[in-house]
Amino acid sequence: MDTSEFRKFAHELADWMADYLEQIESYPVKPAVQPGEIRQKLPDHAPGQPESFPEIFSDFREIILPGMTHWQHPSFFAYFPANSSPPSVLAEMLTAALAAQCMIWQTSPAATELEEVMMRWLAEMIGLPDSFTGVIQDTASTATLCSLLTAREKISSFGINHSGLQGQPRYIVYCSEQTHSSIDKAVRIAGLGSDQIRKAAVDEAFAMRPSALREAIETDLERGYTPLAVVATLGTTGSTAIDPLEEIGNICRKYGIWLHVDAAFAGTALLLPEMRSMLAGIEAVDTFVFNPHKWMFTNFDCSAYFVRDKEALIRTFEILPEYLKTKEADRVNNYRDWGIALGRRFRALKLWFVIRSYGVEGLRSKLRNHLEIARWFAKQVEAHPEFEQLAPAPFNLICFRWHPSGVEDPETLNRLNAELLERLNRTGKMFLSHTRLKEVYTIRIVFGQTYVEKRHAEQAWQLIRHEAHRMQRELDSPG
Amino acid sequence: MDTSEFRKFAHELADWMADYLEQIESYPVKPAVQPGEIRQKLPDHAPGQPESFPEIFSDFREIILPGMTHWQHPSFFAYFPANSSPPSVLAEMLTAALAAQCMIWQTSPAATELEEVMMRWLAEMIGLPDSFTGVIQDTASTATLCSLLTAREKISSFGINHSGLQGQPRYIVYCSEQTHSSIDKAVRIAGLGSDQIRKAAVDEAFAMRPSALREAIETDLERGYTPLAVVATLGTTGSTAIDPLEEIGNICRKYGIWLHVDAAFAGTALLLPEMRSMLAGIEAVDTFVFNPHKWMFTNFDCSAYFVRDKEALIRTFEILPEYLKTKEADRVNNYRDWGIALGRRFRALKLWFVIRSYGVEGLRSKLRNHLEIARWFAKQVEAHPEFEQLAPAPFNLICFRWHPSGVEDPETLNRLNAELLERLNRTGKMFLSHTRLKEVYTIRIVFGQTYVEKRHAEQAWQLIRHEAHRMQRELDSPG
Repeated sequence: MDTSEFRKFAHELADWMADYLEQIESYPVKPAVQPGEIRQKLPDHAPGQPESFPEIFSDFREIILPGMTHWQHPSFFAYFPANSSPPSVLAEMLTAALAAQCMIWQTSPAATELEEVMMRWLAEMIGLPDSFTGVIQDTASTATLCSLLTAREKISSFGINHSGLQGQPRYIVYCSEQTHSSIDKAVRIAGLGSDQIRKAAVDEAFAMRPSALREAIETDLERGYTPLAVVATLGTTGSTAIDPLEEIGNICRKYGIWLHVDAAFAGTALLLPEMRSMLAGIEAVDTFVFNPHKWMFTNFDCSAYFVRDKEALIRTFEILPEYLKTKEADRVNNYRDWGIALGRRFRALKLWFVIRSYGVEGLRSKLRNHLEIARWFAKQVEAHPEFEQLAPAPFNLICFRWHPSGVEDPETLNRLNAELLERLNRTGKMFLSHTRLKEVYTIRIVFGQTYVEKRHAEQAWQLIRHEAHRMQRELDSPG
Repeated sequence: MDTSEFRKFAHELADWMADYLEQIESYPVKPAVQPGEIRQKLPDHAPGQPESFPEIFSDFREIILPGMTHWQHPSFFAYFPANSSPPSVLAEMLTAALAAQCMIWQTSPAATELEEVMMRWLAEMIGLPDSFTGVIQDTASTATLCSLLTAREKISSFGINHSGLQGQPRYIVYCSEQTHSSIDKAVRIAGLGSDQIRKAAVDEAFAMRPSALREAIETDLERGYTPLAVVATLGTTGSTAIDPLEEIGNICRKYGIWLHVDAAFAGTALLLPEMRSMLAGIEAVDTFVFNPHKWMFTNFDCSAYFVRDKEALIRTFEILPEYLKTKEADRVNNYRDWGIALGRRFRALKLWFVIRSYGVEGLRSKLRNHLEIARWFAKQVEAHPEFEQLAPAPFNLICFRWHPSGVEDPETLNRLNAELLERLNRTGKMFLSHTRLKEVYTIRIVFGQTYVEKRHAEQAWQLIRHEAHRMQRELDSPG
């Protein structure tokens, strides 16, 4: 494909992309495909000879597209959103064309320096103190791993990197019962062992109980173990519970424990001054992560990781082979030393395009709109005698279930709600996911998609009631 | 920005991208910017109100572009290439528009199943046995970390994940003096400690000496240490040396040691049947990684990681919280359990577009052309009395230096070549990088860019001689 053909096809794709966004509501949110169905349509072997782009693009539309889950559909209510936006997609086009490998300053000075500035903008936008320095990671999982590794190195005077964990004290990591699975994963990868995780009990709002944290620390100290780090979550994955940062921070200070904050999803809400109260206690925080690629209209991957001690982060990861030495090293940031992967995409560009296109006020008004839709939905649930909300909803996620009158057996309720969720998703008109809160099967609905409007929440609520009524009728007249 | 504006701007960008590729040779390969120069042109604070796309795009062209290193310039000869291609860029456009989060099958069945098929295609294309299963990782650094973690878990019956490394035997990892820095990084992250790395001596071709490996293993066994893994490299970063896989494999089998192969750059050469001899010994290999994002015309990031024991990989990383449970789990691949990050981009699409657009034969002919250009360049170096090749060149990387007659002091030669490299890069007409081979400052030139032709090698050779002659004149008449 030469550049004139590329030009022609790029224009074709520009139209297809715009059509896709315009027609996105015509697609089923979640495809009705069976495991193996797409694979069977693809040849077993690579073609020996070139195939034409029109042929490839046609296969994309006919084989791949029907097997996609449409994350940009406004009725994608599952998990957390990965909301993209037109300016973000435009930036990704340029990133792909430049195809620069931004591992060190010299391999793309503008990419490094734009990243520095974007991280400063973001820190200010979410109200982080000036003392934090930011860097883009691929995901919050990776950022959390970086944080625990830095804690591991700092507590051992950077000795574990060299001598390993054998012969070291037993290091303990604390979080809550509701913490994301990436904490378990990071603790395992770092060689600390998941038996060394203490999951503090949560309160009725599913937030960490500081008293449970303190007791766990005391118990470990008595046993001769070494508390290493606490991971507090602002907006848990299950129900967006907010761990009480101020009290947790006080405990960390008292015992001299590293504190990481996982605000992967809800961190974006900090753009709103009215949401900043959850940052109280930030003075005790060592590292903080949130994902613009979740709720800030920025294509995956773009996780903003902020650290108070930049030198400790770099010292944890820096290895300087001859072929990567450059003469500017002491005057620039070489981001390859700020994380796990060596290679890096130019990810700051999409942040620049998104923040400037919306402006901070534009972003805020979109977030407030999401929160308002969520409040409306929560009200409907609350007002309906056969539905119940199962957790507080401080953001745009509502945890609820259907509770038909007369049914009180917990397992029956769980089974009914799993069935309801399955039926709703099968319609292709919406996509919801679930969790369990204190053993209760919980339907989650998140209003965070770029294109979601109140009407989508209204449609969803109507469909949910409709499907529940249908199930009720089936229950009433079985067979 | 609504979709009609998006359509308009996407067309504008389609033209800009095609123009960029057409005019790429008019840009300086490496920009003449000073540290901080780009940063100073960017505002300290995010804008409160929206800015127009034409304004943003104009800033991109005027502020960012002059600070980019142009990796797609045909005279980008530095490091290893990260060569993109028109079909790859087109796929990235679609990936950005779909903006799907492909962490599990359910969140995009087509992305998961296309990845399965692409990994099978790739395995066959490079001659890997059927027993390998593949998965896309972001980088070879991450893949190597995954490999060492799997080895760590397998040797401990998956116990370190739970109990940690404290109290475990001292595990040793073996590689060569020329191994990539990511091995050190992975050993540190995994908690094993870099003191437990043995870097076996290399031969005159910079390949690992099997005898040195065997001796190191014997010594460690005598000390009561536990050999954990060997990392063999096909195409080292310094000089693309090829570690003797067959002999290394025999040693690993004899002692029952895990064997990982890092073919990050040179793995692409295995597309050529005439290069397959370096795979002799593959039967003893547990894991294998190569990067289509380096030399196979596929945008970063796309690292192909192959494992013989898929279950061990999954068991190393699997954590199944309630909110990620799906009913198809036992019939599909959920790739979040195949590595470190939870979130995943739709990276298989660009592989599909690239492999089909070129066809296997088309890819081979491009690779053979690169190898031919490199052979031509090596011949020029060899024939010139004042230049010398410093390492064998089994692929498309030539390691060489300027050796003016009469200069024999090693440090002077090192200094002169560092100066020559600096001057060449300052011209903006080419970008070279360096390494040190046995303390000798070595200029590296790689012919692997998508658009590189023989004329670029000719220009480079002319410029190198020209600049060396100029330096010679300055040396002859100082002051």
